[in-house]
Amino acid sequence: MARKLLYPTSLALDTLSLEGFSVALQPYDVKKPIPAEHSDAEILITWANSADNLKDAAQRLNNLKWIQSLAAGPNDVLNAGFDTSKVKVTTGSGLHDHTVAEHTLGLLLASARKFHEMRDYQTQGKWPGHLGGPQPDRPKGSFTSLRDANVTVWGFGNIAKCLTPSLVALGANVTGVARSAGVRDGIQVVGEDKLPEVLSKTDALVMILPGSDSTNNALNAERLKLLPNHAWVVNVGRGTAIDEDALFNALQNNEIGGAALDVFVKEPLPAESNLWKASKNLILSPHAAGGRPQGAEGLIAYNLRRFLAGQDLRNIV
Amino acid sequence: MARKLLYPTSLALDTLSLEGFSVALQPYDVKKPIPAEHSDAEILITWANSADNLKDAAQRLNNLKWIQSLAAGPNDVLNAGFDTSKVKVTTGSGLHDHTVAEHTLGLLLASARKFHEMRDYQTQGKWPGHLGGPQPDRPKGSFTSLRDANVTVWGFGNIAKCLTPSLVALGANVTGVARSAGVRDGIQVVGEDKLPEVLSKTDALVMILPGSDSTNNALNAERLKLLPNHAWVVNVGRGTAIDEDALFNALQNNEIGGAALDVFVKEPLPAESNLWKASKNLILSPHAAGGRPQGAEGLIAYNLRRFLAGQDLRNIV
Repeated sequence: MARKLLYPTSLALDTLSLEGFSVALQPYDVKKPIPAEHSDAEILITWANSADNLKDAAQRLNNLKWIQSLAAGPNDVLNAGFDTSKVKVTTGSGLHDHTVAEHTLGLLLASARKFHEMRDYQTQGKWPGHLGGPQPDRPKGSFTSLRDANVTVWGFGNIAKCLTPSLVALGANVTGVARSAGVRDGIQVVGEDKLPEVLSKTDALVMILPGSDSTNNALNAERLKLLPNHAWVVNVGRGTAIDEDALFNALQNNEIGGAALDVFVKEPLPAESNLWKASKNLILSPHAAGGRPQGAEGLIAYNLRRFLAGQDLRNIV
Repeated sequence: MARKLLYPTSLALDTLSLEGFSVALQPYDVKKPIPAEHSDAEILITWANSADNLKDAAQRLNNLKWIQSLAAGPNDVLNAGFDTSKVKVTTGSGLHDHTVAEHTLGLLLASARKFHEMRDYQTQGKWPGHLGGPQPDRPKGSFTSLRDANVTVWGFGNIAKCLTPSLVALGANVTGVARSAGVRDGIQVVGEDKLPEVLSKTDALVMILPGSDSTNNALNAERLKLLPNHAWVVNVGRGTAIDEDALFNALQNNEIGGAALDVFVKEPLPAESNLWKASKNLILSPHAAGGRPQGAEGLIAYNLRRFLAGQDLRNIV
């Protein structure tokens, strides 16, 4: 009897690209308990599973050896109670690079060009003339263009590497910030010890930090104060990387130019969050940057071959 | 007595970069009549001049030989009554490429990622959950990403050449449309006779046509009907290139996905325009793509040397 791989029906997978291995491919519903006849599965692919589904699977899939999540940060799987001494977990890192990078670029341009303000005028039937017509070119103390802007990308993994060529092509001066310094893909990446120096010269700060204890409130009140008054903050990593109260204060007091947030400490953003009151210089995006893995079949097939061959898996947690 | 060049104070020019020629440099106010003592000027640089200023200059600057406009399309100068048998006119073509290309890219991403809809939810205190979270990747009959999107750029001059590398880098399939076909900067450009074929496969149509009799209503009801129902139209050329009534009907009837317009037949958009009613799938930008010449000194100095040497000028009308 072939080993069993369960794949989710929560996205359209081209299962033809997973054939050719000595593995039985079985679809499953990520919002329901896994049927009893599939509780012998060795491999579980996850995408947008319900918390109940995962908790139940952790209890009942006693034969499980490997979970391939398609999420970049599979916190859901890690918190479900699987016995990680027996079950390997691999992430979907790399499957979201293009979509998140594209959304980030859009948020940066929306911030620079003030699309949110234009929209508010439009919906009120007013022509936002102050944002158009002849105007100064990139006046000092402003963020109006990526050209010659100092863009700092904090968290320099796959997504950053996918994003930065577009920023460079538009004329931005890009600096990366990460735990280890060096030059990556032609971009200078400095350590977090250099943050004071880098933040003080930043026109736009892009945050792509993963969620973890070490990134919690990475952008806090103290670091927000290091940013110039015109600087924009764009967060597409995890909401927990920003102290939302400190950010709200900085926005209200115009200590920064604005923020474009795709992620929040709690999602959906709770009705009682102060951030709803900051719409003047805050652009809200509902965790929409990623959410649509690309090339999942290629990653699954790559790791499946390695799993069957007893080799190390890619994107292991 | 040196020949006199009048330069505008309507933008910050680095006049040091214009020194070294046997020419007297004189600043002037573009919103007032040119002072009598400068009516002997041979060269006039224009930027954001009032219609009255230009009309008056056309009457009184009898020594004038050359006008260097810093606008990409100097319709204001051409309509002011200068004697073009005596006065050469050169445009600011090339000075707006980066700014317009950047804004266009922003409008394309805002259209694909539905930033306008997110904004409307935000200002109403509502979380636009339907636009975020797990979602299908580029479903058929939608424009949700530039990756693998068919982007048609109608009007293939400097701005298009500045824009298309960014589109290609994000994974778009770009086709140009222009009066003369060929391959330019690696992009296939087809003639307008191929429009029916090209429009029917277009996910996003970018219009960068200049204003002229020949481009009037270039995108009319008939051509709008050729576009797929999900296609977006982005116009950063001239408003007159689109039949606004036909566009409004197409938007109202969901015959296209939407439109992002930076230019209009009349600007500011009149209160009575139907387009104000189309905000569901129309993004309005107040002629904000350009409006800030970059590198004007370089163009002026280049043409000034050629003018003094009796050579052909760049960007001659």
